[in-house]
Amino acid sequence: MYSDDKLHEECGIFGIYAPDREAARRTFFGLYALQHRGQEGAGIVSCDGRMAHIHKGMGLVSQVFNEENLRYLQGHMAIGHTRYSTTGSTKLRNTQPYILETLDGPLAIGHNGNLINAPQLRRELLERGVGLQTSTDSEVIIHLLAGAGGPDWPTRIRIMMAKAEGAYSLVILTREAIYGVRDPWGLRPLVLGELEGGHVLASESCAFATIGARMIREIQPGEIVRLDHNGYEIMQGAPPQKLAFCTFEQIYFARPDSVLNGRLVHQVRQKLGRQLAKEAPVKADIVIPVPDSGTPHAIGYAQKSGIPYSEGLIKSRYIGRTFIEPTDQLRKVGVAMKFNPLPDNLKGRRVIMVDDSIVRGNTSGPLVQLLRDAGAREVHVRVACPPIKFPCFMGVDMATQAELIAANKSIDEICEHIGADSLAFLSISGMMKALKATDGYCNACFTGEYPFQTPIPLIELQEKEKFPQVWGN
Amino acid sequence: MYSDDKLHEECGIFGIYAPDREAARRTFFGLYALQHRGQEGAGIVSCDGRMAHIHKGMGLVSQVFNEENLRYLQGHMAIGHTRYSTTGSTKLRNTQPYILETLDGPLAIGHNGNLINAPQLRRELLERGVGLQTSTDSEVIIHLLAGAGGPDWPTRIRIMMAKAEGAYSLVILTREAIYGVRDPWGLRPLVLGELEGGHVLASESCAFATIGARMIREIQPGEIVRLDHNGYEIMQGAPPQKLAFCTFEQIYFARPDSVLNGRLVHQVRQKLGRQLAKEAPVKADIVIPVPDSGTPHAIGYAQKSGIPYSEGLIKSRYIGRTFIEPTDQLRKVGVAMKFNPLPDNLKGRRVIMVDDSIVRGNTSGPLVQLLRDAGAREVHVRVACPPIKFPCFMGVDMATQAELIAANKSIDEICEHIGADSLAFLSISGMMKALKATDGYCNACFTGEYPFQTPIPLIELQEKEKFPQVWGN
Amino acid sequence: MYSDDKLHEECGIFGIYAPDREAARRTFFGLYALQHRGQEGAGIVSCDGRMAHIHKGMGLVSQVFNEENLRYLQGHMAIGHTRYSTTGSTKLRNTQPYILETLDGPLAIGHNGNLINAPQLRRELLERGVGLQTSTDSEVIIHLLAGAGGPDWPTRIRIMMAKAEGAYSLVILTREAIYGVRDPWGLRPLVLGELEGGHVLASESCAFATIGARMIREIQPGEIVRLDHNGYEIMQGAPPQKLAFCTFEQIYFARPDSVLNGRLVHQVRQKLGRQLAKEAPVKADIVIPVPDSGTPHAIGYAQKSGIPYSEGLIKSRYIGRTFIEPTDQLRKVGVAMKFNPLPDNLKGRRVIMVDDSIVRGNTSGPLVQLLRDAGAREVHVRVACPPIKFPCFMGVDMATQAELIAANKSIDEICEHIGADSLAFLSISGMMKALKATDGYCNACFTGEYPFQTPIPLIELQEKEKFPQVWGN
Amino acid sequence: MYSDDKLHEECGIFGIYAPDREAARRTFFGLYALQHRGQEGAGIVSCDGRMAHIHKGMGLVSQVFNEENLRYLQGHMAIGHTRYSTTGSTKLRNTQPYILETLDGPLAIGHNGNLINAPQLRRELLERGVGLQTSTDSEVIIHLLAGAGGPDWPTRIRIMMAKAEGAYSLVILTREAIYGVRDPWGLRPLVLGELEGGHVLASESCAFATIGARMIREIQPGEIVRLDHNGYEIMQGAPPQKLAFCTFEQIYFARPDSVLNGRLVHQVRQKLGRQLAKEAPVKADIVIPVPDSGTPHAIGYAQKSGIPYSEGLIKSRYIGRTFIEPTDQLRKVGVAMKFNPLPDNLKGRRVIMVDDSIVRGNTSGPLVQLLRDAGAREVHVRVACPPIKFPCFMGVDMATQAELIAANKSIDEICEHIGADSLAFLSISGMMKALKATDGYCNACFTGEYPFQTPIPLIELQEKEKFPQVWGN
Repeated sequence: MYSDDKLHEECGIFGIYAPDREAARRTFFGLYALQHRGQEGAGIVSCDGRMAHIHKGMGLVSQVFNEENLRYLQGHMAIGHTRYSTTGSTKLRNTQPYILETLDGPLAIGHNGNLINAPQLRRELLERGVGLQTSTDSEVIIHLLAGAGGPDWPTRIRIMMAKAEGAYSLVILTREAIYGVRDPWGLRPLVLGELEGGHVLASESCAFATIGARMIREIQPGEIVRLDHNGYEIMQGAPPQKLAFCTFEQIYFARPDSVLNGRLVHQVRQKLGRQLAKEAPVKADIVIPVPDSGTPHAIGYAQKSGIPYSEGLIKSRYIGRTFIEPTDQLRKVGVAMKFNPLPDNLKGRRVIMVDDSIVRGNTSGPLVQLLRDAGAREVHVRVACPPIKFPCFMGVDMATQAELIAANKSIDEICEHIGADSLAFLSISGMMKALKATDGYCNACFTGEYPFQTPIPLIELQEKEKFPQVWGN
Repeated sequence: MYSDDKLHEECGIFGIYAPDREAARRTFFGLYALQHRGQEGAGIVSCDGRMAHIHKGMGLVSQVFNEENLRYLQGHMAIGHTRYSTTGSTKLRNTQPYILETLDGPLAIGHNGNLINAPQLRRELLERGVGLQTSTDSEVIIHLLAGAGGPDWPTRIRIMMAKAEGAYSLVILTREAIYGVRDPWGLRPLVLGELEGGHVLASESCAFATIGARMIREIQPGEIVRLDHNGYEIMQGAPPQKLAFCTFEQIYFARPDSVLNGRLVHQVRQKLGRQLAKEAPVKADIVIPVPDSGTPHAIGYAQKSGIPYSEGLIKSRYIGRTFIEPTDQLRKVGVAMKFNPLPDNLKGRRVIMVDDSIVRGNTSGPLVQLLRDAGAREVHVRVACPPIKFPCFMGVDMATQAELIAANKSIDEICEHIGADSLAFLSISGMMKALKATDGYCNACFTGEYPFQTPIPLIELQEKEKFPQVWGN
Repeated sequence: MYSDDKLHEECGIFGIYAPDREAARRTFFGLYALQHRGQEGAGIVSCDGRMAHIHKGMGLVSQVFNEENLRYLQGHMAIGHTRYSTTGSTKLRNTQPYILETLDGPLAIGHNGNLINAPQLRRELLERGVGLQTSTDSEVIIHLLAGAGGPDWPTRIRIMMAKAEGAYSLVILTREAIYGVRDPWGLRPLVLGELEGGHVLASESCAFATIGARMIREIQPGEIVRLDHNGYEIMQGAPPQKLAFCTFEQIYFARPDSVLNGRLVHQVRQKLGRQLAKEAPVKADIVIPVPDSGTPHAIGYAQKSGIPYSEGLIKSRYIGRTFIEPTDQLRKVGVAMKFNPLPDNLKGRRVIMVDDSIVRGNTSGPLVQLLRDAGAREVHVRVACPPIKFPCFMGVDMATQAELIAANKSIDEICEHIGADSLAFLSISGMMKALKATDGYCNACFTGEYPFQTPIPLIELQEKEKFPQVWGN
Repeated sequence: MYSDDKLHEECGIFGIYAPDREAARRTFFGLYALQHRGQEGAGIVSCDGRMAHIHKGMGLVSQVFNEENLRYLQGHMAIGHTRYSTTGSTKLRNTQPYILETLDGPLAIGHNGNLINAPQLRRELLERGVGLQTSTDSEVIIHLLAGAGGPDWPTRIRIMMAKAEGAYSLVILTREAIYGVRDPWGLRPLVLGELEGGHVLASESCAFATIGARMIREIQPGEIVRLDHNGYEIMQGAPPQKLAFCTFEQIYFARPDSVLNGRLVHQVRQKLGRQLAKEAPVKADIVIPVPDSGTPHAIGYAQKSGIPYSEGLIKSRYIGRTFIEPTDQLRKVGVAMKFNPLPDNLKGRRVIMVDDSIVRGNTSGPLVQLLRDAGAREVHVRVACPPIKFPCFMGVDMATQAELIAANKSIDEICEHIGADSLAFLSISGMMKALKATDGYCNACFTGEYPFQTPIPLIELQEKEKFPQVWGN
């Protein structure tokens, strides 16, 4: 499998309370629209107020579900989950939603995020005699809920929130209602919408358009929302902390047609590109994106700079999902297996290549070379976010710090490394300006300032050694 | 799927501690030999002393495992489980072994049996805040163990045994050892064996021959056996109750080449047939079995009566495992789809047809007719166990009492119902004589005398209504 | 996969013309009853008088077909085929029936047998410019039919029969009728039956009972039978040759409840056993079969000799179908993986072990040892057919001559080789007596006298070198 | 499955002769790059000079092949095929390449195109007694080749070319060489390339970049190219006809990074957009494409018009491949399931929406509405090709004439139908200008002037009625 030079999100979640009997079918289409947030596996739990039904599987949403298993997922309530794909991994065991029987009826959850105090919570559960089946934080959360002990679900959710530290957007299914929960830092997105006679929750608002729903508002940090036959009710579940929404949702993760933190993502990305054009102008003949994720940024750069927008690289729509090993010769071809240049657009031209981000920096160099081989006279690389220097502990799968090129090289060194005529990253302040914010974002991967006090990496390592109980499907 | 007129066992279990690296492979062949105890699904958990590995799936043992997933199941310890097939059911969720992470390392169990106080134990766990994922007793047992709280596994097993009431033979895998446990009533079998440099546990000794192991002895009621690098150690886990070994293991469930309660099953069945010949002689020309399970009983009957043994019915080796619906006309053919008569052996003859048992009585009538149509002059039906009149609550899947023909009709009525010239069942005292026992067996399905004080059916019903939280794969 | 020491049949075929719309469903159950003739793959072609429908797959009949694909196989006519399993082979390409479009509508065939002049016919087709897709004789036959050129199908079948030399029982589907064809030597069986409002063809009559049909008669050598809306019509397709029905159908291949050459197979096998008792008596305490195929022969031997029949070996019903490699230690266990002895039946006894046949002789020795280890005082081996000394070229998969133990050792040497106290094979004349025949059987594997003039092995080798165009699925 | 409003190509083909042993692996990556030409099924045939190997399957190239089956496809020669997906169809039988054994060794073909005289050729083959297995033209071609009768393959190919009328680009594998063939009208593309020590053929040059090969030249109409150990040799197979290359390859089918008819497709599409801007200017604030296929045309339109390029619609990358039925309410949502608008880019703006083509016209209306609902003040639709008024008989799957909106409505009527403020199609002369050609293209779908004399639709209908011999997998 070809790795791209991108950060990766962990999951997409969806929840619905609707009067008709097709909650699961709508959840299917909702997950479908959230497929970009995870391709490893998917699952849906539905409930008709009495019994819960579950179907999960490995692969794309469209591979996991068919008419037969959808038919079986009856009820007016449902939650769904789509999971991020790590190379070749096939653990059905880790696929969500999780479901448990409790004294108060079935309980199911879908989780997007990462707890930083999971090892401690895990140990607490084990000490209480609760055996665990997976190594996921999400299982920790469902057991915290099942064992919380309060008189009703909102209370139990609050008890759980008081213990959990880190990133968590949750959809929760109980016998009577669907709940949505967003952590007090607001690290991962969660949006509320309505459709004829019912309400929906999703990681991103793009899922609403797909099923004919309208966005009501984003769930705020620390809030709990309850969907039931009375409509929806929003409660405060934990005191909100200083908002720390993941900047990378705006830069790369989210679909451009989603609205996050009040802003349409495509607009934000164009703004990032415009700001980049302001900060790092250069004389050139065309502006091209690194497709597909760099497209809105490049459009913004082109608009601001007045340099014509065009395409210079075509990305194979299908490549990147195969597990077939290339031959040695093909390995040398490398990036050319994914990107083909458009020589007629490039010949003799000074080209500005706009990318949304650079992580390990192993793709930019070959792309620059590809453009030069296709006749580009100059290649100027512009990156629509600041250099990534620090690891994420809040649910983003990224390189270790040693692999992050900007953690180890200066910008000049990177420029030389990738063979560009010039290289510029967007500044942190420029980025915040484009985001129309002075605050409210987690920029830890750029700055190393994490939103938590906890000495994160330390715990991580200590505890990992103690619990190496890995197992299969 | 064609139902046969038999009782059905729930499961087969297997465990091994062996010095080489192929514990899982031997477990595979052990489960293979126990396949008759369950065809719905199978699973193996292995452990190398550090990490545990699991693979489970629906279907026959040979369908679930292949070289690829076996290779992955590394370690010198393993347990396995094969599960009884209910019509068309496909719940991977209920497939065993179950596995949990605990403070003391991985914990996995395979269970054969049924707890009669499962609903209470279930409620206790839920009240403690332990969420449950399945509706099986076996999950209850693993959570009891995980939360038992003692200083070591034998202590925890004893704590669990003090709470659990009912039938349970268990194989348990921990980081350091394999444990075998048999309930204090000895309801389900469990046997200990040895092979070069290691030890094994199995539901039946037939699994030992298959893998080149030798039987040491049966685990006694209430015993715990521990297999580790020191060999094996037997401890008393709970005071043994009055032995109540399931008679039907001897009559029908077990493979004829297994040794149960000190007796070779094939011999026991021949003895049952001989006793039947003594109790219920009749003048006839040939003795034939209802294949395949009635064969040893018929051989015994023939030997004792001096009437020649032959075959009169051929059973399709493959029929009975299809899910294709017959046409209406085929439905009328009924039993003929499974059994074909051998007219040349039957023509003009007086036939004694020996069966091991009759449950609902829906097969015997058509078989008698089949024999008559093929030319049999007389058909005398002899059944090598007493009439079944009461339901089982200890892990045997059988008809409800309303369906049991002997609970609703006299022997004469049954004889008329099936159209035989004569019909006789073995007497209870005759059966015990053949078993060379005055006691030590659970004959509840014949007598209604259950080995427990608990008012079983009552609980069953009350609680079942409270927890209808059924869900899918 | 464990090899047994048996000859193997190539295929089972089935055809039906019936008024209702469920021809394919009945064909399914017919193939089900013929499953013992081949487990590699299966297929059905149906036709509603206008269009033909086909479904084929690898595996058992019950694995290949489900309600969904059966529903699709519409029409009042159908033929089916089940194919013999060679180790691990998975060529869908070779699965039958084959189907072609012709000027006269769809043409499909199912074939049981082997042409000895296939290489020449193959070359003729290729020279005519007909490309071939498989290396099977059956494809040769369908192309001979498609290109035969006569005015109607019976004529075309006759043209094909004039060219084809060797063993072939065929079911043929055309737009208007089903045809059954049996080669002029009658090497492979083919039987005609009737059911309410329609007619059926099958390799063996056991398939008729399963679907509620009655046998009319066997198709005679060289005959063509046509099933259509007028009922059935029998024509002579080629002059019958000297009948040479495969003796091994009687000895081992066919199901005991089939009628072949006018005789119930189970009766024939008992007769073989009785004759064997007459020819080769020995003092002993019990007669036991090598299960399952040796059972009727052993019953016959017991009846004639007056020595009690019992069982001494239990065969695992499931073993033999796995592809998992045993460990080295398990390999040493060998035959014990498939057969377990019953010590209580054997201890201190003089045992006669009756087998239907011995091919390579690699199983008998370990079985004798198994019986001795279980306590048998003496072991006398009796084989209910003569020594197999010559290879088969008419569709039976057997060892090369070099592997046939009887082609290389005297009976005394074999007896020593297998470690028996005595060994006897049935004589050829004794076998014919049991078959109540002086002639009419192909005994080539015992005598080396083939029913054809053709110098068979020579052709086979020459041509095989010229056409090594093997390919995959 | 959601239908889009596009024409659909039938297939992609690939061939390679390379010295190393990885011809099949390269073919895999070649097919991968051609995946846009067909997603129903794929197959590869390889040959090592002695034997041929084949693997085919349903689904995407990456689903059909894995390391295991690739390893099996040995040899230095290979051809591959990827097939266009019709809704829900699952006929492995129609998947290519086809393979036959012939007197001259294995013969395999992969075919892109459609013969217009297939019914006659089909009948000729059937009259010659060649049975056919599928209803495809491609099987007709392989049988024509197998039965052509000349002394060598080039001769046989010429004989076939003399008979076949219509569109065919072929890759052919024989024991010694790979052949590429393009029909005398040049209707479908076929390109020759070289890589270290070998040569390749592909439908489009984009496949070359992916495997590190370089384009040599396009195969000209009527040419045969032979790849073997001497390199490549080009021969004339049939006199070239008036070049009639499918215009739609340039407009929509081909990947933008391919070179067709000497022109980089992306450039051609930009030119089409520029020409459209010249012919049909309109005052507006932004130019947006209908993604993804309309993007280069929109870039060209923006560049020429000077109106800023942006995005206004986001297309779900994953939607369109599911087989789940939407609910009734979702059906009303319709196009919104696939496309989401970007309101911030559209609000209050005058929008030019550029599409590459309109077929049935069922998508444009809802898109216009979507843009208006998102705030667009005006919506002007511009289509970068002329109105499609006539059906294609040369291998393009399109609506019947009755469904073609431009065959039934005037442009004004269409404009009203889709609710746009204005609508313009590119003129035929403008299109040719953009293609820099006065001739050499098949514009039949715009003009109704087919490159053949044959009264095409007539034959089609007559013969289709005569051969309704449809069958399954």
